[in-house]
Amino acid sequence: MGNSLPVIGLAGYSNSGKTTLLEKLITELKRRGYRVGVIKHTHHHVELDQPGKDTWRHARAGAEVVVLATPSGVSLARSYESDPGPEAVISMMDGVDLIIIEGYKRGKWPKIEVYRHVVSERPAIPREELLAVVSDVPLDSEAPCFTLDDVAGVANLIERVILKTGG
Amino acid sequence: MGNSLPVIGLAGYSNSGKTTLLEKLITELKRRGYRVGVIKHTHHHVELDQPGKDTWRHARAGAEVVVLATPSGVSLARSYESDPGPEAVISMMDGVDLIIIEGYKRGKWPKIEVYRHVVSERPAIPREELLAVVSDVPLDSEAPCFTLDDVAGVANLIERVILKTGG
Repeated sequence: MGNSLPVIGLAGYSNSGKTTLLEKLITELKRRGYRVGVIKHTHHHVELDQPGKDTWRHARAGAEVVVLATPSGVSLARSYESDPGPEAVISMMDGVDLIIIEGYKRGKWPKIEVYRHVVSERPAIPREELLAVVSDVPLDSEAPCFTLDDVAGVANLIERVILKTGG
Repeated sequence: MGNSLPVIGLAGYSNSGKTTLLEKLITELKRRGYRVGVIKHTHHHVELDQPGKDTWRHARAGAEVVVLATPSGVSLARSYESDPGPEAVISMMDGVDLIIIEGYKRGKWPKIEVYRHVVSERPAIPREELLAVVSDVPLDSEAPCFTLDDVAGVANLIERVILKTGG
């Protein structure tokens, strides 16, 4: 990989609540002073920009990379012939303390699984990749298990095991 | 600068037709086999993502960098405390042969000005920074002057002077 930033994954079936948990986790980690980068990977072809915008027009015209720079942030869209894979995407990240990835299921980084009993019968991630389970029911799991509300507990685990800064 | 990619600017008053010319120019340069990167800088605070999208929610929660990766491209949004300036943005670019910048008026790269007589009395860019003028009226300009339709002429000039590959 192009850098050695700590990477964790967020896994779980659709509608298990990954986006909401991730939102809370970002807020909590930022509150603790960490800079968080997020990568979401999808197998679907998604429009990366809003149709009609200048940047969208330039990408459609064939620009490889289109950047919109503003006083408070920068957005960049890059087109690829084929899916660049997680390493290339991770290497685009700098200036963060932790990268949280949703998607790229086959990635070998430690993963937090969001589990809901109504959605699936058992967690999807094999034990050896499982950093923790966040579940709506008590689970007989070898990995640390947290309730859906216990964002502080998850953040403590990330600090201790991944960021190695106590917690 | 973080890299030594050729950079040119596209300048001109609002409504002079910059976006349309740039679209045509990207298409023409891509047809000639060049990979083009585009940077558009604005002084306005613009929403970098579509409200409600997962990536938008994660950025709002406080993530420094949010990436959406798809099989055909990657979009990245990075937040800054203050405007990062052109060098930092240019350094985000790689894998292109030419960077075309709209905005950052004080940048010292060679510029193409799009000029319309109805919009302003005379071109805005000082002669020493002017690579070419693209104008709706014949101009008594020391810089090469092209009509709004002569995208091939502009591309030839860019090839010869900036990319130094003939043309």
